[in-house]
Amino acid sequence: MKEREYIQDLAAQADAAGVIQGIGDDCAVLRLGKGRVQLASMDTLVETIHFDRRFHPPELLGRKVVSVNVSDIAAMGGIPKMLLLSSGLPPGFDEDWVRAFNRGFLTACTEYGCALVGGDTVASPGGFSFTVTVLGEMAEKDLLLRSSAEPGDAVYASGQLGAAAAGLALLQAGQDQDDPDFAPLFARHLNPSARVELGQKLATSGLVHAMMDCSDGPATDLAHLCAASGLGAVLFAENFKPSAALAEAARLCGAQALDWMLKGGEDFELLFTAAPDQEASLRELAAACGLPLLCLGRMDREPGLRLSTGGQESPLGFQGYNHFQED
Amino acid sequence: MKEREYIQDLAAQADAAGVIQGIGDDCAVLRLGKGRVQLASMDTLVETIHFDRRFHPPELLGRKVVSVNVSDIAAMGGIPKMLLLSSGLPPGFDEDWVRAFNRGFLTACTEYGCALVGGDTVASPGGFSFTVTVLGEMAEKDLLLRSSAEPGDAVYASGQLGAAAAGLALLQAGQDQDDPDFAPLFARHLNPSARVELGQKLATSGLVHAMMDCSDGPATDLAHLCAASGLGAVLFAENFKPSAALAEAARLCGAQALDWMLKGGEDFELLFTAAPDQEASLRELAAACGLPLLCLGRMDREPGLRLSTGGQESPLGFQGYNHFQED
Repeated sequence: MKEREYIQDLAAQADAAGVIQGIGDDCAVLRLGKGRVQLASMDTLVETIHFDRRFHPPELLGRKVVSVNVSDIAAMGGIPKMLLLSSGLPPGFDEDWVRAFNRGFLTACTEYGCALVGGDTVASPGGFSFTVTVLGEMAEKDLLLRSSAEPGDAVYASGQLGAAAAGLALLQAGQDQDDPDFAPLFARHLNPSARVELGQKLATSGLVHAMMDCSDGPATDLAHLCAASGLGAVLFAENFKPSAALAEAARLCGAQALDWMLKGGEDFELLFTAAPDQEASLRELAAACGLPLLCLGRMDREPGLRLSTGGQESPLGFQGYNHFQED
Repeated sequence: MKEREYIQDLAAQADAAGVIQGIGDDCAVLRLGKGRVQLASMDTLVETIHFDRRFHPPELLGRKVVSVNVSDIAAMGGIPKMLLLSSGLPPGFDEDWVRAFNRGFLTACTEYGCALVGGDTVASPGGFSFTVTVLGEMAEKDLLLRSSAEPGDAVYASGQLGAAAAGLALLQAGQDQDDPDFAPLFARHLNPSARVELGQKLATSGLVHAMMDCSDGPATDLAHLCAASGLGAVLFAENFKPSAALAEAARLCGAQALDWMLKGGEDFELLFTAAPDQEASLRELAAACGLPLLCLGRMDREPGLRLSTGGQESPLGFQGYNHFQED
């Protein structure tokens, strides 16, 4: 059973009153009235699967647990409002570590303007585990789903992809965390930011057709967006230009920078589609948030996700990280 | 660090706009407008800590994961609406077990009238783990918090306490699950029901002052209610009458029935306070839901929770289950 089959087995759901979007997007969308919708999303981070305490400082991990969840609100164009946290704590856990985690968690809540309103605390036999539910809000008319991309749309990302995967690979290889050359790569793995401000600007601009966050890498994420929109897409390998740091990290780790950019995941950049003649306006919106805009490819009617290299297309399926590792 | 200290460390929170009740009640309460509030709660069940797969049928466990969460909505007098589920699945998990769990989970969602709208699925190195966030709704004027008990109030429970603890002890001792003598005890541990209908009736009756659900046993739960209301309470040992099945189970397991009733927990009955002259009306409301009404004691101004046995009072502190087991 793969992760997708498990979710499909669960998602056999009737439409419920007030539910605009159930399982299948970054957030569930629930009608609040007066043209407003509520957004709800839930993400779990498990020790050894999603984080390694040997090199992840607890304060940054606390912040990351918030950012990873808030990123799903950003991916709809919404405003994060409230969080619930369930903490699984192993026997004999280090209290100082937990206090530092909590500090980072609460600092991030303040930063994103959302309040911790509840949760649970349980013993956990398998190491630390943190589950967050985030609730957000926005105008229904501005909502950006995965399912509304149009053929001919350009596909954009809000920043350098592959940085989180490169940072993780370097840390796993024992690279010094204080090495300034790799600082942006370490930061993207240890302390990513949710693109909340850009998400809201894109949503209210009326220029964007479909959006999601890039949590598993575009090879997986864009395939989901294609499936939801009933379209395909081609990504242009030429447009995936690694930064000098990313290229150097790939060399050091014996990895391919393009692989990290396509399949690394955890960058939490926004991935969105818009008519190609809007690029200048979109670039301005991104620049106002201090972010670059990368054009990755083009939506079309040909099914599936493809990578074009020197004019040659090859298929690019669901190749992201499968947490069940049965592939 | 005890569970309560951990929660206090996290709860150092500023009041946020629209948050009527943050950490510290069964649910967080958020203002929706038009006199309505949203309720949000989160609970995690961890294998070996909260459930034992050797005797817990997966379909019943799936149902219990929903009921335990919906019970927090019932405890405010609310209507459950939506659920998010994060499933932690161990390596090489039994697919049939998971499918049966999902069936039970979804059946319970339908039963309680709420929809599964999202969640997450992750690998879990320490066995199965299920975290649910439940969202509910109600009129703000009917909201029943823990903090509004009054001195002189009678304290009630909506059914036999101690049944879940007795059922668990029997199962752990290897008692045959099909033994009809103990069926209500097994059922209360394996397949508890959330008292949603009674919760709503009590909330709209205007007769109840404070309410919560009984998840850790009254020795712990009522101490929380006392602290939140700035009051104390005395429980009358004479009013804790074990059923014949409970008494027989205690004899078989070498346990005290009164201990199970006070400290066993997981019964998910409603625990509430009201003026003592309203007992006849409250009894009618409970009977309309097929439930008994047990008077456990009385709220007063003397601090702390006490047990009165033959007119002699002795202190009864936080003696429920501490998941961190450091007491």
